[in-house]
Amino acid sequence: QPSRAVMALCELGHTDLDQAGSAELPIAYDKVVVKIFEGDQHGAEFKKLNPARQVPVLVDGDFVLAESHSILRYLAESRALPDHWYPKDLRKRARVDEYLDWHHTHLREGVHTYLIKKTLYPVFGIDVSEDEFNSLRKILQVSLKYMEDKLSKHKYLCGDQISIADLSAFCEIIDTKLLPDVDISKYVLIVDWMDIMLAIPAIKKVHAGLLSQIEGSMKNMKAKL
Amino acid sequence: QPSRAVMALCELGHTDLDQAGSAELPIAYDKVVVKIFEGDQHGAEFKKLNPARQVPVLVDGDFVLAESHSILRYLAESRALPDHWYPKDLRKRARVDEYLDWHHTHLREGVHTYLIKKTLYPVFGIDVSEDEFNSLRKILQVSLKYMEDKLSKHKYLCGDQISIADLSAFCEIIDTKLLPDVDISKYVLIVDWMDIMLAIPAIKKVHAGLLSQIEGSMKNMKAKL
Repeated sequence: QPSRAVMALCELGHTDLDQAGSAELPIAYDKVVVKIFEGDQHGAEFKKLNPARQVPVLVDGDFVLAESHSILRYLAESRALPDHWYPKDLRKRARVDEYLDWHHTHLREGVHTYLIKKTLYPVFGIDVSEDEFNSLRKILQVSLKYMEDKLSKHKYLCGDQISIADLSAFCEIIDTKLLPDVDISKYVLIVDWMDIMLAIPAIKKVHAGLLSQIEGSMKNMKAKL
Repeated sequence: QPSRAVMALCELGHTDLDQAGSAELPIAYDKVVVKIFEGDQHGAEFKKLNPARQVPVLVDGDFVLAESHSILRYLAESRALPDHWYPKDLRKRARVDEYLDWHHTHLREGVHTYLIKKTLYPVFGIDVSEDEFNSLRKILQVSLKYMEDKLSKHKYLCGDQISIADLSAFCEIIDTKLLPDVDISKYVLIVDWMDIMLAIPAIKKVHAGLLSQIEGSMKNMKAKL
């Protein structure tokens, strides 16, 4: 998910979404695929780039940077992207930072950690208690409520213009579609915001692989009914 | 822990630690205690300040901000603190951000989440599987290794000068002293760095309460032997 957020920002680059018909002006980048299910992240070469062994990692000349939120902030500033992505105004910027910090211990826990513990842990024979699942489901509920509240105040999560907070949140929350026991349809403002996000060509492009995976698992479920 | 990091930055304020004998020039602030064990954070008044119901929260005139890392960044910038706390140089700043993002899913998981699940969950009758504890202990080990690596390269976590990353990390890691089954003494560089941090009067002041609590539990343990 975090890798998709970084790629989406590169694809969007200097695009001004508020200007009708604005052509997308991407940031040039080379995509290097790290196959985490095949363990590429444990290789010596990758560990040198990121001792935490996580994707994404940005290599910008001789500067190597991990952590998607830090990469998003750095790209917005170093490439002088339109201000709305990561505002220069201190209070507007703090609002975006506040979301990005909150994200780690809330939405990411409620979606990513839940997904991993629900789908991968059984494969590896790791035991998760029912209390643990309840706690993760509770975190997801609280997260959705918090986002719905934010979207009741303005079009995007941190104001009336799109920011890197929306990119991070969208790439995480779309993964709920991979969880058969999670249904977010009652959060109508989140659903609307997701439609707006997915209508942006660069974001759609970055999610093409995931969307066909979701479609596949839907067909699978229907076939089982 | 995060509240202590914010208070420490306020207490340190414009102090220049690299200038010998520099007097501490704090940022003026009023401390409002939120008694979380008595449920103050669930009151309507506090929920209005922070819907996520977590401390700390900064109230700066009509601007309200949650999330300790965001507060640290905002204070450093809005109060024009010495550059080393949160550097203006994009790459140095990104290095501090990278630590702060990493912290959420690593050190904080390994210390805070472990402490809560080990000490509070049993009180509330919430079941934690042994696999879950093993996974948290593993996260702590990986975190300590990552920090030790960073400290092998420079005096502080993100360079040769102290930054808000050190404040956040210190306030978290000192809590390992409350965990009888955790011993970090073999991480010699972390132990040295903790001594350096605790020798700073403002940091010592903010931790006075916790340090006497640690001393109390040590005496308790010795009495049991």
